[in-house]
Amino acid sequence: MARVVVNVMPKTEILDPQGQAVVRALGRIGVTGVSDVRQGKRFELEVDGTVTPADLDRIASTLLANTVIEDYEVVTAEVAQ
Amino acid sequence: MARVVVNVMPKTEILDPQGQAVVRALGRIGVTGVSDVRQGKRFELEVDGTVTPADLDRIASTLLANTVIEDYEVVTAEVAQ
Repeated sequence: MARVVVNVMPKTEILDPQGQAVVRALGRIGVTGVSDVRQGKRFELEVDGTVTPADLDRIASTLLANTVIEDYEVVTAEVAQ
Repeated sequence: MARVVVNVMPKTEILDPQGQAVVRALGRIGVTGVSDVRQGKRFELEVDGTVTPADLDRIASTLLANTVIEDYEVVTAEVAQ
């Protein structure tokens, strides 16, 4: 089994109100020096050898990301036993 | 400015209904071979040199993760100009 990570982030031109809320909250806990925060999603998939890179791309673009407003990245991370 | 990534994932002993919904949906698009999916959050922070690793840990544990049910990981990814 291999672990595959799919990162889904809002496109840079899309406003990210969740990230902006974190930026504002940083002031309240006394942290300066963080100029921007963007919030996205991280999926960890356990896949076997029958899953091709094309399958992973289809999974990411069909189920995991809304490609109108989000970009995704498929990272084949590590192979566990 | 450096980019820091904070990954927040549900603890392994916590049920993840969002990930399970993805697993069920995979059958509908004809993909087999994915045994488990877990969904978490990914934060990308733009920080300057005044932000210490201790600050980042405090940001992650206070604002970004609910440490009762989630684990987090701080990854100092790359330094952009």
